[in-house]
Amino acid sequence: MERTCLAVILAAGDSTRMKSSKSKVLHPVANRPMIAHVVDAVAKAGISSVALVVGRNAGEVSKAARIGGVEVEAHLQKERLGTGHAVLAAREAIARGYDDILVTYGDVPLQTEGPLKAARQGLAEGSDIVVIGFHTSKPAGYGRLLVKDGELIAIREEKDATDAERAVKWCNSGLMAINGRKALDLLARIENSNAKGEYYLTDLVEIARSLGGRVTAVDAPEVEMTGCNNRAELAAIERFWQERRRHELMISGVTMIAPETVFLSHDTVIGQDALIEPNVVFGPGAVIDGGAVIHAFSHIEGAHVSVGATVGPFARLRPGADLGERSKVGNFCEVKNGQIGEGAKVNHLTYIGDAVIGAGANIGAGTITCNYDGVNKHETRIGANAFIGSNSALVAPVSIGDGAYIASGSVITHNVPAEALAFGRARQEMKPERAKAIRERAQAIKAAKQAKTE
Amino acid sequence: MERTCLAVILAAGDSTRMKSSKSKVLHPVANRPMIAHVVDAVAKAGISSVALVVGRNAGEVSKAARIGGVEVEAHLQKERLGTGHAVLAAREAIARGYDDILVTYGDVPLQTEGPLKAARQGLAEGSDIVVIGFHTSKPAGYGRLLVKDGELIAIREEKDATDAERAVKWCNSGLMAINGRKALDLLARIENSNAKGEYYLTDLVEIARSLGGRVTAVDAPEVEMTGCNNRAELAAIERFWQERRRHELMISGVTMIAPETVFLSHDTVIGQDALIEPNVVFGPGAVIDGGAVIHAFSHIEGAHVSVGATVGPFARLRPGADLGERSKVGNFCEVKNGQIGEGAKVNHLTYIGDAVIGAGANIGAGTITCNYDGVNKHETRIGANAFIGSNSALVAPVSIGDGAYIASGSVITHNVPAEALAFGRARQEMKPERAKAIRERAQAIKAAKQAKTE
Amino acid sequence: MERTCLAVILAAGDSTRMKSSKSKVLHPVANRPMIAHVVDAVAKAGISSVALVVGRNAGEVSKAARIGGVEVEAHLQKERLGTGHAVLAAREAIARGYDDILVTYGDVPLQTEGPLKAARQGLAEGSDIVVIGFHTSKPAGYGRLLVKDGELIAIREEKDATDAERAVKWCNSGLMAINGRKALDLLARIENSNAKGEYYLTDLVEIARSLGGRVTAVDAPEVEMTGCNNRAELAAIERFWQERRRHELMISGVTMIAPETVFLSHDTVIGQDALIEPNVVFGPGAVIDGGAVIHAFSHIEGAHVSVGATVGPFARLRPGADLGERSKVGNFCEVKNGQIGEGAKVNHLTYIGDAVIGAGANIGAGTITCNYDGVNKHETRIGANAFIGSNSALVAPVSIGDGAYIASGSVITHNVPAEALAFGRARQEMKPERAKAIRERAQAIKAAKQAKTE
Repeated sequence: MERTCLAVILAAGDSTRMKSSKSKVLHPVANRPMIAHVVDAVAKAGISSVALVVGRNAGEVSKAARIGGVEVEAHLQKERLGTGHAVLAAREAIARGYDDILVTYGDVPLQTEGPLKAARQGLAEGSDIVVIGFHTSKPAGYGRLLVKDGELIAIREEKDATDAERAVKWCNSGLMAINGRKALDLLARIENSNAKGEYYLTDLVEIARSLGGRVTAVDAPEVEMTGCNNRAELAAIERFWQERRRHELMISGVTMIAPETVFLSHDTVIGQDALIEPNVVFGPGAVIDGGAVIHAFSHIEGAHVSVGATVGPFARLRPGADLGERSKVGNFCEVKNGQIGEGAKVNHLTYIGDAVIGAGANIGAGTITCNYDGVNKHETRIGANAFIGSNSALVAPVSIGDGAYIASGSVITHNVPAEALAFGRARQEMKPERAKAIRERAQAIKAAKQAKTE
Repeated sequence: MERTCLAVILAAGDSTRMKSSKSKVLHPVANRPMIAHVVDAVAKAGISSVALVVGRNAGEVSKAARIGGVEVEAHLQKERLGTGHAVLAAREAIARGYDDILVTYGDVPLQTEGPLKAARQGLAEGSDIVVIGFHTSKPAGYGRLLVKDGELIAIREEKDATDAERAVKWCNSGLMAINGRKALDLLARIENSNAKGEYYLTDLVEIARSLGGRVTAVDAPEVEMTGCNNRAELAAIERFWQERRRHELMISGVTMIAPETVFLSHDTVIGQDALIEPNVVFGPGAVIDGGAVIHAFSHIEGAHVSVGATVGPFARLRPGADLGERSKVGNFCEVKNGQIGEGAKVNHLTYIGDAVIGAGANIGAGTITCNYDGVNKHETRIGANAFIGSNSALVAPVSIGDGAYIASGSVITHNVPAEALAFGRARQEMKPERAKAIRERAQAIKAAKQAKTE
Repeated sequence: MERTCLAVILAAGDSTRMKSSKSKVLHPVANRPMIAHVVDAVAKAGISSVALVVGRNAGEVSKAARIGGVEVEAHLQKERLGTGHAVLAAREAIARGYDDILVTYGDVPLQTEGPLKAARQGLAEGSDIVVIGFHTSKPAGYGRLLVKDGELIAIREEKDATDAERAVKWCNSGLMAINGRKALDLLARIENSNAKGEYYLTDLVEIARSLGGRVTAVDAPEVEMTGCNNRAELAAIERFWQERRRHELMISGVTMIAPETVFLSHDTVIGQDALIEPNVVFGPGAVIDGGAVIHAFSHIEGAHVSVGATVGPFARLRPGADLGERSKVGNFCEVKNGQIGEGAKVNHLTYIGDAVIGAGANIGAGTITCNYDGVNKHETRIGANAFIGSNSALVAPVSIGDGAYIASGSVITHNVPAEALAFGRARQEMKPERAKAIRERAQAIKAAKQAKTE
């Protein structure tokens, strides 16, 4: 039978070094709050019960932590008296009786399920405590993991370490799995007779051993154990996340000419043989099908790009943009809540909002769908193979029929039937030789102004 | 008399790890297929005959390999039985009798002429085989070059190496020059009595030595010998290429504020004292004259920018854009097949397509040349010192004379003589106090909608 | 009493490797000439008198060096006979009698006040010469600082060094403080009996010691001592500068998702809890208040963004743009000399120039303020809560009253009273079934053209 597990996620930190008006764990990585990354790793490790220990912004943190498939229960830590004290804020949940208790941190967003599973496996094999460690070339400042005969005999703090111990490069990440049946008893034994008067979770190593329990350690990649204490570290974590995900996508068959300039969101989906040029930013909810081309300087969020479609350069796709096969959205174009039919073209300086564009339609440069009247948003429908002349304004709600032709520079306020020509523009008038007069008048105004300021 | 040489370029690989629908060597580096980079290096080494060993996408690969000044003959390798076998796919060409045979690889696009020439020089000095090696700090996995008294005595594979041999950091790149008069005889002696049953080109070292021939090695920079096996490696190769070329340009007198954000094509030309700001992408065919300024977020392809001209930020120059001296193309402007005269200004939100703009003309914000009627492209001509008022649409074919003045918001469909004023816009009408009624109606619609959904 | 100090800044170099038409020290770092960075560091070290030794572009260099609070006097070095000779170009200034002479370089723009102060402190404590050194892992080529019993006993040039001396990693930066009362006497003793026939400032170490003076050295971070000799080094210096400043801002509470893609100017101000997305370029004079959001691909210069305002993606703010609280400037929008009122929205494809926009106004997509008549710039005023329909042209000077409503696609040339509706657009006309005829005519033209070219 499968072992039950409760993850206790500590997320009550004050995060003063973030210098932020909101809790550290709400700061996003890849457009998703840190805490949600942690809950996601926990869920992937097969754990569906989470006790979230919160302080500041408790409501928002709890909300951000609620992702599909995981039951999250928030516990308020009123005072900040150390990690041992923080875990006991979830006493009620722990007391329900789980086989495993996994203690992890809301500000360690790069953690993945692997080490979490390994720690649980250690409990399954008879350990009372399993510490997650990491190897680093710069161990200074971390507690060193001292191992003998396969058991973790101590976590030695830097200041108490001998030279030989200081040379150890395996360090304590702070993450830990605890035998769920013994957890409350062990936690209750932590004392605060130290310089800071705090209750340290790491004391469990000594406590468990003194009671004859077995304590072991498992390893995690250093980068996954990176914590976040200020915004420079947040940026470093974002960078690691991006590098990891870009590499996965490239290995899966996505071309990125300059991967370091492509910014992905946590849920970005890109198919095989898609080409992503330099300087592309994906907000949440983007789905790029295989073989699509995203040119440089594109910004894509909540949008779908089909096979063979082309985006950019300098294009912005907003939520609800759905580009059909072989369609094109080009430079200085914005599409929001708009379907672009198969092979349709929206190539230059155009705003498409709340619109449905038929297959093969051609939308001229400078076209604006006027979807907003100051209060409501209205829809524009453009039929298949319609031709919208450049610099036209389509005042929604309005419908342009299949194969219709809108003359350049028109303002269209009424529906246009299929195959009709519509125009709405003034007749051109001319005044010969008048340009000179205009220039002279303007220059006179300029001269007058200058005379005034002198 | 100069020695004759045939380059055998192996380009038949299956490239499964690329996860691509096309052959690896067709994937571009700096907007040019990898294979063309290799042929270019071969050409620069003074070799004008190429035997291209192809498999997948044979036609396209052959086409991509045909660059000026080199005769390329394709040879199909039907089965994949190792590098020795691959070279013999070009048996017919080799049999023609060259002094030198140079074997290189289509997926090693950073190679330059230096090491290729050095290898040929080795043949000229009496070697039968000259292996191109590279020094690396991470030799694991590569065959080590074992040298004694100036001769290469063996290429030792990792698995067969002693500890001392494993410490050698000079490794086999796979590239090799072969005495052309002996090549077919030597190649015929390669056997496939190994685990994989393949014919390995590296066996030539032992074969040549066993026949009393001299075998030597020359050195190449590690980075030049980088092969490409997946898209992450492709990105790394692109990065090396870009870094090398950016550095050359900077040393030649081009300022790049943030070179790591400037992406060049294989043929990008930039003159001395040009300034390239951050985030500029050059597609093929861009020529930037000295002293020009390319502001941030610009995308330039197939365009020419003259001395003292200014581009961007957020400008796109497409093929056929030709900017005269001291002209300006500014933000959210696109120019395609358009001449911008000396000192002319196209500063904001403008599309110029198929147009000729005279010196000193001023094109107002939001101007669109309506060059496309759904079937044909038509030309717009704008005279010297003409003034095009903002938000105008110029419906091509149309011609605006020198010094003419187009009123803002006009749609111009007929030619405008020099010095004339033209306008094509409706007279402004007003309804006092009507705005409130519009808002109220809109709000009523909104309320009705909400009532419906509730 | 405070000691007096003269900084002698050497800025007369020929900078041939820059391959530039202007003096090296005029090249900017973070949008400010190198020489101004150096004067700024000098000023921060509490020095208010500067003797600038200039050669090429003397006038421009002197001008660039004049920053607030420092008195800069230029001295022309007519011949280039070494650093010792260069300092003596400022003989007249030195002769005025300062306690301290600090010799520094115009092409070392990353220097900060710390090491300069430390060098002066050395003089205050009795040294006649204080050399500024730096530790490096690659000392090859630099003079090594040889120290004994707290005194600098020699600067040993690479070529004269023993193996033991060559292993020293503390190197001479060239910067130096000199006892101001003895400076002229010491400088006069430098001889040019060396291979190049030049006068070397470093000889002062030996000279001062031979006269029984005390010579010491202080340390500076290696990066701060980086000199600039070509444009690749200029780019490296820019990079260091940017990294240093980004880090400071992040630590102070600014979020940068991808700091390596954010380019700051020397005077960029960003408040706590502001969010800067990837690919943002700040020109000089930008002030971003706390809590503002700058989306990707934005370019901001001489502009102010208030609390809660949102910019971009793809927005350009130019000098004089002033965004009120909770206002928005969105994609493909440019604002120049324009006030955007509290909560006002300028969201799409808009040019705002020389305009004042009231609180809560909504500016539709494709709106253009036509501020330029070819000679003068005119102002547009838009009242609070006004609604400007999409694709409108507002021909300045013009004023739109509070709560007024401009219909989409209008050209507005006359003032619009508060609460009025204004429109200026042609009535829509239609020709049923005419689209087909248009297409057929266009296709006939195309066919005719093709026939011609065949």
